[in-house]
Amino acid sequence: MAYLVIMRHGESVANQQNVFTGWSDVELTEKGIQQAHIAAQALKKLNINFQHAHTSYLKRAIETLNIVLDDINQDYVNATKTWRLNERHYGALRGRIKSDVKEQYGVEQFNLFRRSYDTVPPLLKQHDVDRRYQRLGVQIPLGESLKMASDRLMPYWADQIAPKLLDNQNQLIVAHGSILRALIKYLDNIDDSEINQVEVPNGKPIIYQFDEKLKVINKKTI
Amino acid sequence: MAYLVIMRHGESVANQQNVFTGWSDVELTEKGIQQAHIAAQALKKLNINFQHAHTSYLKRAIETLNIVLDDINQDYVNATKTWRLNERHYGALRGRIKSDVKEQYGVEQFNLFRRSYDTVPPLLKQHDVDRRYQRLGVQIPLGESLKMASDRLMPYWADQIAPKLLDNQNQLIVAHGSILRALIKYLDNIDDSEINQVEVPNGKPIIYQFDEKLKVINKKTI
Repeated sequence: MAYLVIMRHGESVANQQNVFTGWSDVELTEKGIQQAHIAAQALKKLNINFQHAHTSYLKRAIETLNIVLDDINQDYVNATKTWRLNERHYGALRGRIKSDVKEQYGVEQFNLFRRSYDTVPPLLKQHDVDRRYQRLGVQIPLGESLKMASDRLMPYWADQIAPKLLDNQNQLIVAHGSILRALIKYLDNIDDSEINQVEVPNGKPIIYQFDEKLKVINKKTI
Repeated sequence: MAYLVIMRHGESVANQQNVFTGWSDVELTEKGIQQAHIAAQALKKLNINFQHAHTSYLKRAIETLNIVLDDINQDYVNATKTWRLNERHYGALRGRIKSDVKEQYGVEQFNLFRRSYDTVPPLLKQHDVDRRYQRLGVQIPLGESLKMASDRLMPYWADQIAPKLLDNQNQLIVAHGSILRALIKYLDNIDDSEINQVEVPNGKPIIYQFDEKLKVINKKTI
């Protein structure tokens, strides 16, 4: 059966500054660009021919994907960009330095904001005005718990990714730390209470293989 | 009505070496990368919000498109990669130095190979073995006249580009010299006998606007 490779983008400016990012559209750092090249070298050795790729509307993921496809000589693979693979929306925490948020809310609440499944961050007062999201209408979030992010990811999994796996197409997803935690939670069947322990490092490909019922039969990080 | 911007990729290694290229998958030169950045700066001033982009299966076009979308801050625009926007297939002339071909066939035949509408180059003996083309089956060309290239482009125009224009979606196409000559021939209604005079320079955006019947009402090169 087909391979699904999932990977978080390389280090971004916001990762470096330790800021809540979410839907902010920040650049990769030089280190992040290097991480993408290194990931591509590791992937190249596996010799997987991808039939399709998926990424978010955010440039740190798109640029990482472009670097990887170029380095593995598979530029020609079609990639779908979708808001459903955007990072979890951090609401009014977006753009704030993490240590400031910790000071304001206390360490316990801070950890709930970051790692729990269903804690919703303080919401934005109004919707993003960004043309890439205009067509989403009422779906645009003002802030998301990991559960809310998972809920808007799963239709994409069901409609766009799973059918291609069943059709034996190898796929590559380059996205973000929290939205990939949501996907991993689903794929690995992880409890709500245990998802706080899952970390997704920048630029490390995770390789899944499935049986014909889309049960995971193999998983490794390279 | 919507804008259609068409552009040839930046200078490639093969342009620089003056070699017949076609479906060979060659890299951009440093100058070609710069041309992409310069084109993006020019495009940026027009402030066009693209709804979709199109490019070929060949990396010189894909890389040019990626640079342009990144520079104009529209990374998130979905792009379709299709063999129907590949360069004209130069058959057995592919990879040969142009001056050698001119010597072998004489200047008149050489010019027919390069610029006429219906002259077919010497064909390859067998199909390309490249996995990106495997699903094309019998459609894979062994060599194409400009007319043959046009014939495989037009279904894509009719199915994928024209309907989006009628739906008022601005689109960006980054492709290749000869396949864009075929598109320009169609859009500008140029005679078979006059298409030999049309040149498409590397990295120069051409902006088309249409009326609601898809008649060209404005065209400029920037």
